[in-house]
Amino acid sequence: MQFFSDNVAPVHPAVFAAMQAADAVDSGYDGDRLSKALDARFSALFGREAVALWLPTGTVANAIALATICPPYGGVICHHEAHIQNDECGAPEFYTHGAKLLLAGGADAKMTPETAAVVADAIPNDVHRVQPRALSLTNATELGTVYTPAEVRALATLAATRGWRVHMDGARLANAAVHLGCSPADLTRGVDVLSFGFVKNGGLSAEALVFFDPALADDALRRRKRGGHLLSKGRYLAAQIHAMLDGDLWLANARAANTAAARLARAASGRLVHPVEANELFLRMTPDEAAALRAKGYGFYDWSAGVIRLVTHWASRPDEVDALATAIAAL
Amino acid sequence: MQFFSDNVAPVHPAVFAAMQAADAVDSGYDGDRLSKALDARFSALFGREAVALWLPTGTVANAIALATICPPYGGVICHHEAHIQNDECGAPEFYTHGAKLLLAGGADAKMTPETAAVVADAIPNDVHRVQPRALSLTNATELGTVYTPAEVRALATLAATRGWRVHMDGARLANAAVHLGCSPADLTRGVDVLSFGFVKNGGLSAEALVFFDPALADDALRRRKRGGHLLSKGRYLAAQIHAMLDGDLWLANARAANTAAARLARAASGRLVHPVEANELFLRMTPDEAAALRAKGYGFYDWSAGVIRLVTHWASRPDEVDALATAIAAL
Amino acid sequence: MQFFSDNVAPVHPAVFAAMQAADAVDSGYDGDRLSKALDARFSALFGREAVALWLPTGTVANAIALATICPPYGGVICHHEAHIQNDECGAPEFYTHGAKLLLAGGADAKMTPETAAVVADAIPNDVHRVQPRALSLTNATELGTVYTPAEVRALATLAATRGWRVHMDGARLANAAVHLGCSPADLTRGVDVLSFGFVKNGGLSAEALVFFDPALADDALRRRKRGGHLLSKGRYLAAQIHAMLDGDLWLANARAANTAAARLARAASGRLVHPVEANELFLRMTPDEAAALRAKGYGFYDWSAGVIRLVTHWASRPDEVDALATAIAAL
Amino acid sequence: MQFFSDNVAPVHPAVFAAMQAADAVDSGYDGDRLSKALDARFSALFGREAVALWLPTGTVANAIALATICPPYGGVICHHEAHIQNDECGAPEFYTHGAKLLLAGGADAKMTPETAAVVADAIPNDVHRVQPRALSLTNATELGTVYTPAEVRALATLAATRGWRVHMDGARLANAAVHLGCSPADLTRGVDVLSFGFVKNGGLSAEALVFFDPALADDALRRRKRGGHLLSKGRYLAAQIHAMLDGDLWLANARAANTAAARLARAASGRLVHPVEANELFLRMTPDEAAALRAKGYGFYDWSAGVIRLVTHWASRPDEVDALATAIAAL
Repeated sequence: MQFFSDNVAPVHPAVFAAMQAADAVDSGYDGDRLSKALDARFSALFGREAVALWLPTGTVANAIALATICPPYGGVICHHEAHIQNDECGAPEFYTHGAKLLLAGGADAKMTPETAAVVADAIPNDVHRVQPRALSLTNATELGTVYTPAEVRALATLAATRGWRVHMDGARLANAAVHLGCSPADLTRGVDVLSFGFVKNGGLSAEALVFFDPALADDALRRRKRGGHLLSKGRYLAAQIHAMLDGDLWLANARAANTAAARLARAASGRLVHPVEANELFLRMTPDEAAALRAKGYGFYDWSAGVIRLVTHWASRPDEVDALATAIAAL
Repeated sequence: MQFFSDNVAPVHPAVFAAMQAADAVDSGYDGDRLSKALDARFSALFGREAVALWLPTGTVANAIALATICPPYGGVICHHEAHIQNDECGAPEFYTHGAKLLLAGGADAKMTPETAAVVADAIPNDVHRVQPRALSLTNATELGTVYTPAEVRALATLAATRGWRVHMDGARLANAAVHLGCSPADLTRGVDVLSFGFVKNGGLSAEALVFFDPALADDALRRRKRGGHLLSKGRYLAAQIHAMLDGDLWLANARAANTAAARLARAASGRLVHPVEANELFLRMTPDEAAALRAKGYGFYDWSAGVIRLVTHWASRPDEVDALATAIAAL
Repeated sequence: MQFFSDNVAPVHPAVFAAMQAADAVDSGYDGDRLSKALDARFSALFGREAVALWLPTGTVANAIALATICPPYGGVICHHEAHIQNDECGAPEFYTHGAKLLLAGGADAKMTPETAAVVADAIPNDVHRVQPRALSLTNATELGTVYTPAEVRALATLAATRGWRVHMDGARLANAAVHLGCSPADLTRGVDVLSFGFVKNGGLSAEALVFFDPALADDALRRRKRGGHLLSKGRYLAAQIHAMLDGDLWLANARAANTAAARLARAASGRLVHPVEANELFLRMTPDEAAALRAKGYGFYDWSAGVIRLVTHWASRPDEVDALATAIAAL
Repeated sequence: MQFFSDNVAPVHPAVFAAMQAADAVDSGYDGDRLSKALDARFSALFGREAVALWLPTGTVANAIALATICPPYGGVICHHEAHIQNDECGAPEFYTHGAKLLLAGGADAKMTPETAAVVADAIPNDVHRVQPRALSLTNATELGTVYTPAEVRALATLAATRGWRVHMDGARLANAAVHLGCSPADLTRGVDVLSFGFVKNGGLSAEALVFFDPALADDALRRRKRGGHLLSKGRYLAAQIHAMLDGDLWLANARAANTAAARLARAASGRLVHPVEANELFLRMTPDEAAALRAKGYGFYDWSAGVIRLVTHWASRPDEVDALATAIAAL
């Protein structure tokens, strides 16, 4: 009955099984065969050359990604709702050594080429101002919406025109892929570096940082070590990622989460603040209504005045989802 | 037949079991009951008030520890063999924002008050020179030796006299405790902050950073988040630590490793470069001799010209250890 | 005929004379008698204990000030028009090691307790969000307006209530003091650290960083050296500051600049975008009108669409000011 | 009678005259014609394309130079006597964001290809160790000796072979050039970036940072601003540099300093700890002897046990130098 976050979900049994199997694996740090297989695995998944590193959190994946594409005196254009701006206690500033996040607008946490350009165009091109060097978008977004491949391409085209590198925060990339029914490759055209999330989707402690520009990866490997993120038993992280990709478990898990969210969205269609395209719902709700739901045992966060957030996940139980849908409809 | 490192050891089954049990645990990040129980657990273990955080690597535990006790313009006195100097790709400099490691000598990777003082005494007390602010010692050391409680106290007394804070890198604290037969409290008198290692000793991905000065902990909590080390499913890290402490598994595992090392040390007594007081051995050995051992299937690293390193661990098989001992004796 | 900036003004002859007299002064860095006299001089000027350092730019004065009062993981509330946000290429982020500027609104570049509080109140008090630790206000502001002593006190009271330290960017403090006719002490009640500008007001390369909390100064001294700002011939900077304070030259110079600005303001009263309270004017002006002025030999910057900026200074020639006033009135 | 440091010397009158003439110069920051003329001026002086920036201290010149050629996770090989290691309170670590200085030996503060290589060769090429990325040498050295063009070339050749960039700290380059009687170009073959000092040689507050690889300069310009070193009245710094180069004043001043040092060296030939090739002397001297000199009014620093340092400068008075020489000879 917990709809607080996908972080609260349990670890998928296949992930645990893969970790236990990694006991038999050779070598420390990232020298083992599971870790070394990641480049090929993600290259195959995305249909282009990729270099992939495991990391224990999405926060550090984002932060190292930005550090590889933005100098300390540069700026990163992102939406003002971005996780990198609001939820990482300054990790991007720490890893980039002080780069500035330049905040763009756009409905439903989605930038457009226009909202990104207006930020950049307001900055005189001189040495006194922090100049944009990178653009970072989140897909699925922090408000449960999804950029289409065309929308991603449009932003990437703007970035290429301006000389900015592109990062995608894909903490919930799986949910976006399922929603769109498109391939990972379609979702990431024009992206230089991707934070590919697994932890919110059934993993335990392994995210992938995927470089489509392999020239950036050596820098990232050193920043990973320096950040204290080169786990000595890295094989247990690589194993998690392989397990999530095996048989498209990552898509199956995301599909379950999205389906649950869609079920709730139908029941709450009159209350939706944003389109429900992934596994997060933002509902208008009075404090009394929220209290009534909580009294029935449902757990969730208040988001802002008069708005609550619900998050579903791979292990959300259909009976509990149905019951919550019914309860909301009955308010 | 692998004696490369204690990182290559498998994860202890009790650790896996505890992680799987954590599936049922509430809440994300460090808000779960397992994480919240760490302060009390370490306070009990050390017999004084402690605040404890889980972290995924010893490198980041060390680096955050130093950042809490040394300003960016300060210096940390440590042995020139220290892990923080040689094996962390500058993580201390990263987390402290550029503090300087000030390198002291001493036999067998152990500083003495004299070798530490000589470093400090050579630094004029002015604004042009980086001034010492902290001292960091490793126990057991990087060369497999152990500081006695009296030796730790002597260094801590020097530090107190000079106004330096004290960090202990206890990546192999368990091995030191077993060797000395003394309590954790005895080992850490005068220490402000301890990196308490579990990964080399049967854990998977959880170390503890233990503050005996609780005033430092709020700073550390923010640096952990900012470093990308606040895992969203932190309960699986806390579970590992509890499992290692339950029934003194940490001591049992270290005892097994130390026993295996002692077995090898007896067989190689004429070759020892340093006393064998924990689970690492450094042996004089010609390249031909090393090749002969490798030809028999034993894996280990060359350390320096004419010296090899052997590391035992909690799961080193007695029959393999015996066989290696015999093989060394027969060289 | 240049109204680009007060940076373009010449150096006051008394400043040069004092620098040349410093040839005879003893000792390097800040060990000379001129540098050592600054603490007493500013303590007397402000009527409370102060520690004062010379620095070559206002940018570094601001940045070091912030570094002493805000940790790397903290935030500094400032107006979105603040110099620290817009004109320092990330110097605050560099010196603070990545603190975040939290942008508040308010008419005419002036925050109010309400606009500052609304920024803070939107930030949940948890470890995921950068928490405010300091407040920085500029007086006179970047838009040529002035905080009254009561307005400063109100912000300082809010800060004290919330546990934030207070920085004032006084690059044009002299212009504010002259406008208000109040003492420096009145202008800085509740301020912990002040960047006191002289370069825009007739100096060459010396600003003062004044700590009203002397406990912060040791930290600042080390950050100054580490930032490469401890000039080896610091006596020539101290000499500039003494010359500016002697006989209240700083006030006389600012008075001249303010008077010139007021003359222009009267001529352009229908065009003013902001009140003219110091030495900067922002005028609505069509491109054709601006071109007409430039054709007559007047130099100034376009500020934004349909707005130009004029800046007067200590050496603005009254005849040129009159002529410009006439030319504007005649548009 | 002061032989403490060349920092204590007065400013050359031609430098003051040039600064006063700069009153008439246009534009702020580095947009004035004096600042813009520096590239051409240094290109002519060195006979190859150069980009040159003024900076107020040698410390920041060194630190920015290193930041442009070494990433945060890299290392800089330098002599253990280097100013960047001992006298800058960690400025290199601050500007590089935590790079590590890797200390080499060599007689008289001079590295050789052998002493530099031995440092590098001890570092395994893996991600755990900070890898060398740059080499920094000081000429004239901190101990008053001079690298010949052949010695510089040999180090630069090693660096090129290993893929390291080369920085020269030329705080006393003038003294080296005069000693060797060679051109600035000869002294800097293979050097990527040079800190060219003027302050110890009669300047007030302007050093030049000269890039022979112009591709590095944009990065440096932004780090200068971000470091708070882009003085708004930069024309007064550019003016100093032009004045020092006009008519080879820089060489004349250094010649005076070197001549004075040579006079003292002849008188103290039996006491010299290092060859006297520039304007610094290190003399063996008992405390009683040092006290006797001080009693006669001579000022100087103790350097180490039984060793004093004497520094001459452009304005050292020949009669005072003679008198000191006589006094030393009479000890």
